[in-house]
Amino acid sequence: MKLGKLLGTRVKETPNGANLKSHILLLRAGYIKQISAGIFSLLPPAQRVSLKIQDIIRDEMNKVGGQEVLFPVVMPRELWDMSGRYSSIKSEMARLKDRAGHDMVLGMTHEEAAVFTAMNNVTSHEDLPLMVYQIQTKFRDEPRARGGLIRAREFTMKDAYSFHATQEDLESYYKKVYDAYVRIYKRIGFKNFVVVEGDNGMMGGKVSHEYMAVTPAGEDSLVICPKCHYSSNMEVAVSVCEENDSTETGEMEEVFTGNAHSIDEVCAFLETDKTHTAKAVCYTADTDGSAVVAFLRGDCEINEVKLQKLVLSELSIMDTDKFGLPAGNIGCLNLNLPEGSHVFFDKSLKNLGSFVTGANKADFHIKNVSMQRDLPNVEFVDIALVKEGQTCVHCGEKLTLTRGIEIGNIFQLGTRYTKAMGMKVNMPDGVAREPIMGCYGIGVGRSLASIIEEKGDEKGLVWPMTIAPWQVHLCPLRMDDENVSAVAEEFYKSMQESGIEVLYDERNVSAGIKLTDSELMGVPIRVVISPKTIANGEAEITMRESGEKFFVKLPELISELKCIIQDEIDQIMSKI
Amino acid sequence: MKLGKLLGTRVKETPNGANLKSHILLLRAGYIKQISAGIFSLLPPAQRVSLKIQDIIRDEMNKVGGQEVLFPVVMPRELWDMSGRYSSIKSEMARLKDRAGHDMVLGMTHEEAAVFTAMNNVTSHEDLPLMVYQIQTKFRDEPRARGGLIRAREFTMKDAYSFHATQEDLESYYKKVYDAYVRIYKRIGFKNFVVVEGDNGMMGGKVSHEYMAVTPAGEDSLVICPKCHYSSNMEVAVSVCEENDSTETGEMEEVFTGNAHSIDEVCAFLETDKTHTAKAVCYTADTDGSAVVAFLRGDCEINEVKLQKLVLSELSIMDTDKFGLPAGNIGCLNLNLPEGSHVFFDKSLKNLGSFVTGANKADFHIKNVSMQRDLPNVEFVDIALVKEGQTCVHCGEKLTLTRGIEIGNIFQLGTRYTKAMGMKVNMPDGVAREPIMGCYGIGVGRSLASIIEEKGDEKGLVWPMTIAPWQVHLCPLRMDDENVSAVAEEFYKSMQESGIEVLYDERNVSAGIKLTDSELMGVPIRVVISPKTIANGEAEITMRESGEKFFVKLPELISELKCIIQDEIDQIMSKI
Repeated sequence: MKLGKLLGTRVKETPNGANLKSHILLLRAGYIKQISAGIFSLLPPAQRVSLKIQDIIRDEMNKVGGQEVLFPVVMPRELWDMSGRYSSIKSEMARLKDRAGHDMVLGMTHEEAAVFTAMNNVTSHEDLPLMVYQIQTKFRDEPRARGGLIRAREFTMKDAYSFHATQEDLESYYKKVYDAYVRIYKRIGFKNFVVVEGDNGMMGGKVSHEYMAVTPAGEDSLVICPKCHYSSNMEVAVSVCEENDSTETGEMEEVFTGNAHSIDEVCAFLETDKTHTAKAVCYTADTDGSAVVAFLRGDCEINEVKLQKLVLSELSIMDTDKFGLPAGNIGCLNLNLPEGSHVFFDKSLKNLGSFVTGANKADFHIKNVSMQRDLPNVEFVDIALVKEGQTCVHCGEKLTLTRGIEIGNIFQLGTRYTKAMGMKVNMPDGVAREPIMGCYGIGVGRSLASIIEEKGDEKGLVWPMTIAPWQVHLCPLRMDDENVSAVAEEFYKSMQESGIEVLYDERNVSAGIKLTDSELMGVPIRVVISPKTIANGEAEITMRESGEKFFVKLPELISELKCIIQDEIDQIMSKI
Repeated sequence: MKLGKLLGTRVKETPNGANLKSHILLLRAGYIKQISAGIFSLLPPAQRVSLKIQDIIRDEMNKVGGQEVLFPVVMPRELWDMSGRYSSIKSEMARLKDRAGHDMVLGMTHEEAAVFTAMNNVTSHEDLPLMVYQIQTKFRDEPRARGGLIRAREFTMKDAYSFHATQEDLESYYKKVYDAYVRIYKRIGFKNFVVVEGDNGMMGGKVSHEYMAVTPAGEDSLVICPKCHYSSNMEVAVSVCEENDSTETGEMEEVFTGNAHSIDEVCAFLETDKTHTAKAVCYTADTDGSAVVAFLRGDCEINEVKLQKLVLSELSIMDTDKFGLPAGNIGCLNLNLPEGSHVFFDKSLKNLGSFVTGANKADFHIKNVSMQRDLPNVEFVDIALVKEGQTCVHCGEKLTLTRGIEIGNIFQLGTRYTKAMGMKVNMPDGVAREPIMGCYGIGVGRSLASIIEEKGDEKGLVWPMTIAPWQVHLCPLRMDDENVSAVAEEFYKSMQESGIEVLYDERNVSAGIKLTDSELMGVPIRVVISPKTIANGEAEITMRESGEKFFVKLPELISELKCIIQDEIDQIMSKI
């Protein structure tokens, strides 16, 4: 490809409205163009990267027995009524009417299509396990499209669905896909990604895992153990809580605290530490409007996801006046709530002594409370966010917090969809039963953007060899020199003939523009030839990622490039 | 791939509602599943064929300098308002509102997206020519979805858009794409396709060509010259008209014809031949409601497309009463029409003598009319459909009629979109002007279905080697025989290791089922092993298309298969 003919303009300035590194660099390097909020055209270099990522995904899905299919983008309402999701999914699913006035949806996921397609085609347990996948455009009407390809409304996704006769078979297949995903991300070139538990299944929920590219730009908080590699999304992360000791607690005392309402204000007023306070966080359950009050040690924060699972309802912030509760003075002694209310105590309060809590009366708190002595029958639950430095439940190491972008996920779905849609398969015992499903997603564009978050630098994009749009950026300086242009043209031709994917900057522009453009575009190997290098019978090679520079004799250039390319690929593949 | 694990069921019966060969066979062989009217899932074998067709298209597009991109499926209304097509395209374009209430469309073509993406990125004539293409899902809300993948509402399409500084450059590039398309269809394996003129450009209109798979199942009528290979869509086809002779016409005479109104009735009543009548076909122009009356020789039929181009308006059938015309007795003498009406005479009437025409008075016709004598100042135009056996304007051979399915088209678009959207490029003369565009489409699914219309037979599908879902169908008979199953497993493994794409029927079912299934699925080479062939140290090979059968010694099986596969591919490639 000749750079002068390539569709896309490279710019120096940070484009308006772009904040994330990947978004800025993809725009600046001429890889994408925005058409509407969260909707982009992929220009040729981005489409080349996308196709390479798709090829890696396809290869690994085929290796675990996946069968590639293509489901429709536009589907009839009836299919989504069968699963109940036509009404349960809200405005993130785009809907339209066809010319006959029929309700249609744009599929943002394809469980229904997978079950419908497999129904009647899969009738015996001998047909199982079955895994189908597709790579396809999806539209999800994100309320806050952001970050370019990180959270786009339209995106290319690989989604896969598996069917199993038994839970054991699902679990063993799930493990295979788990490993295939690890290989996919390694082959794409990620060095810094983790697999986190999505849901630990303790609540009878479903097992799932999320693949997270670790980056400060991530939307998700992650908890990681540097020793045993326990890793979890903050939403479901667990840790060992420090032991409290309530043995030396003095006598309980109601004290005036006036306008001191927040934990910080109360601590300052009473000259005590947050670790010796119990704070209340108050909600109402969306299902029945009942009160939900959670008590945590003052230095801990509520994990709403965990709390919702205990209440089995979404939660809204409580209007405390409605329940006659004195906001800022709510405490765990003599709390007066209507029947049907929920009160929870986080495990951070276990054995806590000498602590302060609200007096459930305006302007007053109570000091010298002891859990053991004053609230002996409390049961403790885990409803706090994990904090940096807390202890790993598996190995005792100190946990660290970081952030990540979800680049893939895998779920054990169970029989939710096969039951709802009435798909049954004859099992070995002669009974027809619903097969058990798994589902497995990878965002192609999000993976493309996330690798930039990991590797991109102040100069521009940096592509791993396995997904680079081109392998070599041929960068002749002084194209007005006949000798340079002749040598460059010759190498462009011979690189192509040798199967090297080459981007050739044939333009007669300054060295500054050429070198800056090459750094911005991120092709792994840059080959510079100039009057000077030719005089020495050499070309200068610069590795984009390491910055390493060296000279190669012109007659060996092609074979040397092929070696470097193979080495780079081997290095990535050796890690899988 | 093991057949027993392949998603999809094979059935013997013709499915309800399927009439076209390709639709019936794709359903029967388990290649597709209908989700809604005109909306299908591609099961694994169809997706494999589709990907191979896409690879061929991609390769040929890249060879003519095409740059692959990906435009959005969902686009904002504003983009389509720029070209005026948001309102000019009717209900075949699906529309929706996003969560913010914004009007969006599902792109059924991407001229607007291509111009918008190229704008600002392409600023100088030095960036031209530029051709971008994508392979993508499209939704077109066809009023009459039919024939499975032949006319589906959702389909995979390659669409391409080129930009040029001059008309000459467009024309020379257009020729390159024309040839690339011929190569694509030959590589897919079409033997029977033609390129027809879409619009001859005589009317100052745009040049276009349609690629037609020739098949009786086609929706389009085609005119073909077997000698000089002139070929045209009937809509714009031309032919030489036989000479008429009006020298011996007798005296004009008004005759009572009573209830004889149609040409057949009048000819029977007056005992004359249709070739000696002039019939009237009456319309009104949609633009201004004016009358449009076309006269043709009684044996000819009106070509509405040609007539519309003369009137520069869409046409509706005339309510003759409104214009005071006696339906069934309208003739070309003394025709009384309001000012602004259009009257045309087809060239089939030139020099016609002794003919009958309506008397423009109920129950009467006029005999013995002569064009030369009685209507000497008439100008003749070409407004008739070409008939089988008429003469080729290029070489004088007799023309033949056939039917075709449009599997691709190419257009010289001009500046319609660049002008409407305000895209300008600095030209060599220093002036900024709109680049001239071409556009180029291929229906992937329709090509897949059309090759079945060409090749499928009473036993099932027949795939060319270049796009076959698998190259070899390994069909061991008597899998309960340990020897057979051991040999089969071994060959399955060694075929895969040799890079042969193999579908392996590992099921322990009857020979009848296995052989029938293999014929239905259409894989090019079938390899049968059985206790008997193994005893002879052989395997039996059957070529699906020719039916040719022969035996190969087992030790030579793999190398022989590789030879056959290569030969089949070479044979197809030798024709391009």
